Amino acid sequence: MTEGGSAIRAMFEEGARMAERFGRENVYDFSLGNPNIPAPEKVRREIVRLAEETDPMELHGYMSNAGYPFVRSAVAESLNRRFGTDFSEDNIIMTVGAAGGLNVVLKTLLNPGDEVLVFAPYFLEYGNYVSNFDGVLKAIPANAKGGFQPDPEALREHITERTKALILNNPNNPTGVIYTEETVRAIARVLEEKERELGAPIYLISDEPYRELAYDGRTVPYLTKYYRDTVVGYSWSKSLSLPGERIGYIVIPSECADSRLIFDAAVIANRILGFVNAPSLQQRLVAECLEESADVDAYDKNRRALYDGLTEAGFECIYPEGAFYMWVKTPGDDREFSQRAKGHNILVVPGTSFACPGYVRIAYCVSYDMIKRSMPSFRALAEEYGLSK
Amino acid sequence: MTEGGSAIRAMFEEGARMAERFGRENVYDFSLGNPNIPAPEKVRREIVRLAEETDPMELHGYMSNAGYPFVRSAVAESLNRRFGTDFSEDNIIMTVGAAGGLNVVLKTLLNPGDEVLVFAPYFLEYGNYVSNFDGVLKAIPANAKGGFQPDPEALREHITERTKALILNNPNNPTGVIYTEETVRAIARVLEEKERELGAPIYLISDEPYRELAYDGRTVPYLTKYYRDTVVGYSWSKSLSLPGERIGYIVIPSECADSRLIFDAAVIANRILGFVNAPSLQQRLVAECLEESADVDAYDKNRRALYDGLTEAGFECIYPEGAFYMWVKTPGDDREFSQRAKGHNILVVPGTSFACPGYVRIAYCVSYDMIKRSMPSFRALAEEYGLSK
Repeated sequence: MTEGGSAIRAMFEEGARMAERFGRENVYDFSLGNPNIPAPEKVRREIVRLAEETDPMELHGYMSNAGYPFVRSAVAESLNRRFGTDFSEDNIIMTVGAAGGLNVVLKTLLNPGDEVLVFAPYFLEYGNYVSNFDGVLKAIPANAKGGFQPDPEALREHITERTKALILNNPNNPTGVIYTEETVRAIARVLEEKERELGAPIYLISDEPYRELAYDGRTVPYLTKYYRDTVVGYSWSKSLSLPGERIGYIVIPSECADSRLIFDAAVIANRILGFVNAPSLQQRLVAECLEESADVDAYDKNRRALYDGLTEAGFECIYPEGAFYMWVKTPGDDREFSQRAKGHNILVVPGTSFACPGYVRIAYCVSYDMIKRSMPSFRALAEEYGLSK
Repeated sequence: MTEGGSAIRAMFEEGARMAERFGRENVYDFSLGNPNIPAPEKVRREIVRLAEETDPMELHGYMSNAGYPFVRSAVAESLNRRFGTDFSEDNIIMTVGAAGGLNVVLKTLLNPGDEVLVFAPYFLEYGNYVSNFDGVLKAIPANAKGGFQPDPEALREHITERTKALILNNPNNPTGVIYTEETVRAIARVLEEKERELGAPIYLISDEPYRELAYDGRTVPYLTKYYRDTVVGYSWSKSLSLPGERIGYIVIPSECADSRLIFDAAVIANRILGFVNAPSLQQRLVAECLEESADVDAYDKNRRALYDGLTEAGFECIYPEGAFYMWVKTPGDDREFSQRAKGHNILVVPGTSFACPGYVRIAYCVSYDMIKRSMPSFRALAEEYGLSK
């Protein structure tokens, strides 16, 4: 298995240990994408209402492995309203988070030896998901010069006869970059050309747990509108701050190649991989909260404070457009940087854990206060590297 | 993939369609193990209390991939109190139901080509779980003459150098039989002998979602006390009537071969298979309900009524000792029987779907009233087969 997910998780556990040793307020843990903004108040109200008003056998019972039809229908309608798509319940499968959804999609699509492409930097856990089904993940090198927008020409060079899919994560973890409509169109063109050339579908897997986290009025292109053979994976972990509840969905549009076959196989995959179905109470909950969203303004405030503080201290940062990550260039080796940061009680994840050395990821889904408190430590770290202006 | 799980699920969907067509009260759907007894009232109260009193970031946030330490600790203490075991939180991993837990265990234990044994009849979905990790499930023929108690000598004959594990499901789905202490001791002896002979551990995987469903004061042996290399999988689907919520755990005892290695690998497997962690609210819920149980008396009443009704009608049934299934001998082919039963609006699962032709499984986790209402149809079916006394 690849080490990325492990590295982030190990850091999470270390952060907890350090907090015990130095006091929680003296440890600046920017390692994990664990939302620090509470779920909207409506989540609490709806859980109480569901528990009080629903027949427990309905609330906690089995349903179709694809999820409750009325929930899938509500999800489809919400997508149609927001993105001008044309989905129905027959295009939606409720899943155990996005991680569960991606595993279901990959189990459905991959034969042993099939290749899945991804643009670096990327969430290394994708490598484990792909190898669960004997597929091979191939990374397309990071386009640092192009501001970490994917390079469509590099994509073209990496597609082979074994290429079954491309995973696209937008807004991006770890860079915080939003892939533009121009980028998406160019990627779609390359994929279409290659599909024709190779005579087989190449699926675009859109992993978009950060869709709602976009700043400065930016929009995130809805990929099914740009490319026919797109499958979408979504999770409410970030948008409703429910990461522990494991609730998400996948979309398999009707126009997608072998759509019915893939849908039916994905429902079976959901069952036999051991998910069986997405947690029932959470399904009903999200159906009531489709118009709700975590307080993006709070992340925005963090984003500005962190960016200003770090650039003032002398660090070179990518200004984040979405998600809640800042991608910071390291003076020297990123793993060493991450170690030296720990000496200042700062926990950040080295870019190596995203297949992109020379950077670190700072997750700013933390309290504003912690960002403020951490600044002297970041400045001390900058001084250690001789960066201070 | 094997067809068992699919067949049961297809029947579940067909039952819903038939109910629409003939009216819910005129369809006797005994196909699915979906508990019809509501979750205990305490479940409702605790969900409300958790939602109202817990910080949403604590309630819905990430935790260790193994689950909340305090929940794992509470589970361990409850097991120790009830079964005289000696577990701690370091032996417990919270899982997405028993199906999730079994997949985690198999991912952890199996190398490609490894064999897993199981006594027929068995839940065919095991075959899918094992082949998810390129293992091979081998069934040991049913011991009908021995009242469906597993035959230890048949086990001995089936163990090879490739045997990595034996799955034991007690109380048993589909027979309703409880494997006795004598059977368990004999199985343990065979496994121990074979471990010595082959010089490698053979793991006993105890799948026990029906543990609390035992009638007439019967007890279900706790397997870790009989055999060192035992791993337990559990789910609250049946005992708290929460099948849609996907909440369970696995136990990896400290004395088990390579215990620490297996525990750590299982935590990683929980993450990379896409479960990430068991649903957070449900973890906290079950920790508050460890002394609760669904109303077994209601299942017991069903059991007696169904057994009396069917034997009077002329059917030959195994008297169930546990779970909520009755195993009925079919006059003639079991698939044909199941089809002909459908002609009387009765849905039962053919034994072929449990690798044991010549029987059907009747799931009596239904309303008592439905059992009563179904009796004329069962009698008509018996007459059709010339069984009536």
